Amino acid sequence: MDVLVPPDRTHDTNIKLQNILALTSEDMSAVDHIILDKAISDVDIIPELAHHLIDSGGKRLRPMLTIASAKLAGYSGDKHISLAASVEFMHTATLLHDDVVDESNFRRGKKSARLMWGNQASVLVGDFLLGQAFRMMVDVGSLSALRILSNAAAVIAEGEVMQLAATKDLTTTENSYLAIISAKTAALFSAAAEVGAAIAERPESELTALKTYGKSLGIAFQLVDDALDYSGESRKLGKDVGDDFREGKITLAVILAYRKGNNDERAFWKRTLGEGEIRDGDLERAISIVDRHKTIDSSLERARFYGSVARNAMATFSDNKIKKAMIDVVDFCIERAS
Amino acid sequence: MDVLVPPDRTHDTNIKLQNILALTSEDMSAVDHIILDKAISDVDIIPELAHHLIDSGGKRLRPMLTIASAKLAGYSGDKHISLAASVEFMHTATLLHDDVVDESNFRRGKKSARLMWGNQASVLVGDFLLGQAFRMMVDVGSLSALRILSNAAAVIAEGEVMQLAATKDLTTTENSYLAIISAKTAALFSAAAEVGAAIAERPESELTALKTYGKSLGIAFQLVDDALDYSGESRKLGKDVGDDFREGKITLAVILAYRKGNNDERAFWKRTLGEGEIRDGDLERAISIVDRHKTIDSSLERARFYGSVARNAMATFSDNKIKKAMIDVVDFCIERAS
Repeated sequence: MDVLVPPDRTHDTNIKLQNILALTSEDMSAVDHIILDKAISDVDIIPELAHHLIDSGGKRLRPMLTIASAKLAGYSGDKHISLAASVEFMHTATLLHDDVVDESNFRRGKKSARLMWGNQASVLVGDFLLGQAFRMMVDVGSLSALRILSNAAAVIAEGEVMQLAATKDLTTTENSYLAIISAKTAALFSAAAEVGAAIAERPESELTALKTYGKSLGIAFQLVDDALDYSGESRKLGKDVGDDFREGKITLAVILAYRKGNNDERAFWKRTLGEGEIRDGDLERAISIVDRHKTIDSSLERARFYGSVARNAMATFSDNKIKKAMIDVVDFCIERAS
Repeated sequence: MDVLVPPDRTHDTNIKLQNILALTSEDMSAVDHIILDKAISDVDIIPELAHHLIDSGGKRLRPMLTIASAKLAGYSGDKHISLAASVEFMHTATLLHDDVVDESNFRRGKKSARLMWGNQASVLVGDFLLGQAFRMMVDVGSLSALRILSNAAAVIAEGEVMQLAATKDLTTTENSYLAIISAKTAALFSAAAEVGAAIAERPESELTALKTYGKSLGIAFQLVDDALDYSGESRKLGKDVGDDFREGKITLAVILAYRKGNNDERAFWKRTLGEGEIRDGDLERAISIVDRHKTIDSSLERARFYGSVARNAMATFSDNKIKKAMIDVVDFCIERAS
């Protein structure tokens, strides 16, 4: 059998992930095995393309949340392994389709799959991974887990369509932006955390707490991700610097800067983000406008707020190592911006 | 609530569909209602694009198979309605992604969704419809139905990737071609027919019979569909004439003609299908070569063979109106070529 190149977990500079990495590492190895196993197909392009993404050194935050939640809920079976693999497949499928939609050439500092295998293969292999994800969930046999994850699948796609409709639209409000990131990003974080407790058949209050934890964490994560695109720190995330700017993606730093901007600045945003007419030096100007209005700070302030909601949600559980590790994840997601 | 423009069922020229249309019409109205209901979203583009496809006058053969099978199995609940709607959503999602992959401009004689709303929306709305399909299936709550349909979702996507990998490849064998159409087309016909009996909790033998019926019917359907693309009869299907030829899709009529062809003909296929260098008059020449080797006839002969397998599978059930109507569907799929 194939050997998975493990993501560079141990050397992660951010100490805040150390606890969750250590506590989930054995189960995450089992998840990796399932992931490799379910990416097998006689059609060569499927394992090739799937491995390209899976081996690319993502942190596998989402499946790790499923494993951690199951542990927090005192779950003792092995269903959380398959569910965590399903969560990662759902995420991978979304990345593949996202890159096609955004016409991205890089993902985590590597060439994107669509650049290497084409848009067509990316669309279809994404569909295959989603199909495999559902097949795995069905094999687990928990209708409540299926309900949570199938709901997330529809909400994520709806969020992606919302984002597409808001592209280049400078009238997008902060509320619309929050609705978009809640759906496209936070829904999977939320479902990933909730299913861990769902298979342990824990009371509704615990499921709700983990759902809130995951959702708030996901919103904070995306707020930081979007803010970094204008902070010159994007290379830390393996993103192209200014990706969102070039794609006409309307994120919070821009929404706030547009609102506060003078006529010149608004004309600049309209020409660049609104009409996609981007010239040399425009990204630098965008960064300096955003900087002047301190809207990165405002974005990060909101991220900290959602981070505190995530932390508070965990109060339902008594203190232990897993709970602490899950709270550390919140800190990690916010602190990577600093 | 919105009113669905019903597909032009009653005026269908082919009398062979009359029986199944009549027997399923009440339930299919309920299916139409669910389809409309589940295509609702605050994101305008979702219902717009979904309606464009749903209203475009497809025959809804696949969900009709689910309704008919449930009736054949003596099922008395209402789960078959939601499952049939799920089947149609799965099919619609596939069509959306197919058109993006094939760069098709027309679908059933109307502009394709990707031409009207763009590739990006087609990919994402396809994902949304697939998510909704799974949500509906989970609500039905039958693990056996979920197993059958989630399996089909993965197999269909794998078949689409196989087809993509075989594009322009003139060394594709008849067996590979059969594997492709079994996966990309017949898997959903098969699952659609099987789930009807699965929710009725019928014995394994009946499930297997309906699975075989659906699979063989699906293979026959696709064989005929592909054959028509070289027969000058494609307008009957609302397809662009010569679509497959222009897209470099290697279908059976070509595989057989290439095998039987002389050097000149092989060079012609290599230049056109293999290298995509298509000039004026090439489609006509392709049709005349296929005609000379009678490979449309060979394709239809195989379709008739699979049709007989489908008919024979129905021997498990005692004679009644539904069984007869389902056998008529086999005749319809084959006779539309004549």
